[in-house]
Amino acid sequence: MDFLKKNILCKSAFSFVAIVGFTLNSINAQVPENTKPAPTNINQNGCPCIFSDNRVLFKVNAPEAKQVQVDLGQLYDMEKDSEGNWTVITKPQDPGFHYYSLVIDGFKFADPASESFFGTGRMASAIDIPEEGVDFYNIKDVPHGEIRSRVYYSKTTGTWRNINIYTPPGYDENTNKDYPILYIQHGGGEDERGWAVQGKTNFILDNLIAEGKATPMIVAIPNGNATKPGVNARGYNDEAMAVFKEELFENIIPFVEKNYRVKPGSENRALSGLSMGGGQSFFTGLRNTDMFDYVGVFSTGLFGGIGRANNSFDAELVIPGILTNPQKFNDNLKVFYISVGEQDNRIEATKTLVETFKTKGLNVEFNSFPGDHEWQVWRKSLHDFAQKIFK
Amino acid sequence: MDFLKKNILCKSAFSFVAIVGFTLNSINAQVPENTKPAPTNINQNGCPCIFSDNRVLFKVNAPEAKQVQVDLGQLYDMEKDSEGNWTVITKPQDPGFHYYSLVIDGFKFADPASESFFGTGRMASAIDIPEEGVDFYNIKDVPHGEIRSRVYYSKTTGTWRNINIYTPPGYDENTNKDYPILYIQHGGGEDERGWAVQGKTNFILDNLIAEGKATPMIVAIPNGNATKPGVNARGYNDEAMAVFKEELFENIIPFVEKNYRVKPGSENRALSGLSMGGGQSFFTGLRNTDMFDYVGVFSTGLFGGIGRANNSFDAELVIPGILTNPQKFNDNLKVFYISVGEQDNRIEATKTLVETFKTKGLNVEFNSFPGDHEWQVWRKSLHDFAQKIFK
Repeated sequence: MDFLKKNILCKSAFSFVAIVGFTLNSINAQVPENTKPAPTNINQNGCPCIFSDNRVLFKVNAPEAKQVQVDLGQLYDMEKDSEGNWTVITKPQDPGFHYYSLVIDGFKFADPASESFFGTGRMASAIDIPEEGVDFYNIKDVPHGEIRSRVYYSKTTGTWRNINIYTPPGYDENTNKDYPILYIQHGGGEDERGWAVQGKTNFILDNLIAEGKATPMIVAIPNGNATKPGVNARGYNDEAMAVFKEELFENIIPFVEKNYRVKPGSENRALSGLSMGGGQSFFTGLRNTDMFDYVGVFSTGLFGGIGRANNSFDAELVIPGILTNPQKFNDNLKVFYISVGEQDNRIEATKTLVETFKTKGLNVEFNSFPGDHEWQVWRKSLHDFAQKIFK
Repeated sequence: MDFLKKNILCKSAFSFVAIVGFTLNSINAQVPENTKPAPTNINQNGCPCIFSDNRVLFKVNAPEAKQVQVDLGQLYDMEKDSEGNWTVITKPQDPGFHYYSLVIDGFKFADPASESFFGTGRMASAIDIPEEGVDFYNIKDVPHGEIRSRVYYSKTTGTWRNINIYTPPGYDENTNKDYPILYIQHGGGEDERGWAVQGKTNFILDNLIAEGKATPMIVAIPNGNATKPGVNARGYNDEAMAVFKEELFENIIPFVEKNYRVKPGSENRALSGLSMGGGQSFFTGLRNTDMFDYVGVFSTGLFGGIGRANNSFDAELVIPGILTNPQKFNDNLKVFYISVGEQDNRIEATKTLVETFKTKGLNVEFNSFPGDHEWQVWRKSLHDFAQKIFK
């Protein structure tokens, strides 16, 4: 009988009438006037919902709570009505993807009304606000590739690990065709789901390939959080970079290039990433230009890395020759690309670094996009970088 | 400057030192004596953690909360210490996968210490308790297939929809080989992630294929929550079954069989599912034996469907001939399989139905497994059913 009592939750969860799924919070089921439900909402939840000026209305039914807040970076206090419904309307938000949490009586967690995404070191809510006139990452009526999930055994970490692989449209049909490959890294607090889900890598590439703007390519989306037993790998210290390099060179690349139809050689291999992953790409890509002809560094404030002086960055120290012998890098790299959000506090240091590189004669392509340290900037960075490589 | 203030969360989320990810709740970082962290925990969280007798210790740091509970079907009140840490030790739990929620001051949500899974109509926490001596769904050192995620446009729902496809080891290499296919459906409150993530379909099939116990097959894992504008599809009513059939026959099967190397004909096509998906398989499979030679129905209390008398089920009414002309079904179906959990309250009605079928001369294979209405039963059902089909 214990079993019967135990699983009330499961029983109601799988009842017959729940074909379309549940609406947990009845006040969320209606879409308030002049708003649209966020596309990241679960099922039919009307809220969070977005006004035409990108203010967002959040709603939570929690009659017993003393305090309810929304943490969107800025903390918003919600107000309670007589039925225990808490609401708040935020300031206009930037278009794009923003992680957020609910905070009830000081405890922070994911909103049941939203999809969850692995970011900020846990499964977090997010709201994805459409950007007017921007549709390069939408699903369109074009040939679609796949995101393939697969496990490999890493001798470095001593564990089975998951990797996501984008294969372009036609991969299964054109069995004699080999493809160039982009290895792309997520940020801190994220994993291999970042570029596959939040980043919309598949739709960005599907659309670019359909328009003839990108060379059909494979994109390997690994988990960059590699640790090695007994090694103190932290931040950008030498041990961390050595473990990342070992995982990439001795496990990921051999696995991917054995199991997928990848064109050989550095001219068919690109490395890029965002934030932490941009740092990994900077260090590993520029130190190994025999392996990669294309390096993309998105939103990486290199000036903040462990072992570097605060707010300064000695590129020559970590990449010998980059300032004193830039021609070697110009000869070995076809594209060295740096991008950053225009509202990211990393922008000034990034521009300074790019200026230093240019002054020394190093070829570097720089672009910036509206937005802070967030996925809309990284989607645009991938969209930009993917058009420059393998050409 | 608004932008800078706005994204404090994102900035800390992507800071340099967060290589391995965050531990939100510091009291969770240590694993208490005599326990093991649940494999479903995020990152290094020590709790929820499991004693050797399968009691589970939950921990939450919420100094401001008035009341904290764990909802595992049974609701457990947690106790607070002087530092605001709430803990509870549950009764011994069944091995396997259990959805759960935290409840703070009456509001139910997913535990930040756990991975989240789409179930119970939202992203829910779960704890997966290893079962001694049971390893058929573990990752082993055998050839591994892939779970491929892809979108198709449904003319029925009028939307782009995601589908997951398991392709067996060797699919990419053996380009002249075609495979039989199992279409498998999730339960109510779940979606196409259910069998791909909670169900561990890929590891179950990889292991069975490596042992020579299952014929290498493709498994299509669609989203069964299909709705059609203007149609009142609810539960098992005729409209719901018609929409499900239309989505499967006019969208999913043509898409899958066009894009993957699927052997043609009903002898190479199986349909199965759990709970709600078991009902979909029962109705759609048995009404269309020209399409499917194999039908698997897991944990479906058919006696509870809308339009049927309460606690009774007239099989002949919904599947004409099944009791009066069983030979037709015996001739057309190679395997008709029913399973249920031994602690599921559906078991008696399920056994009665199986007995009725057998009395009338219908060939039906029945099995039951320890457990309630839960994924451990469904993993075992797939493991059992997959060994019987395409042989």
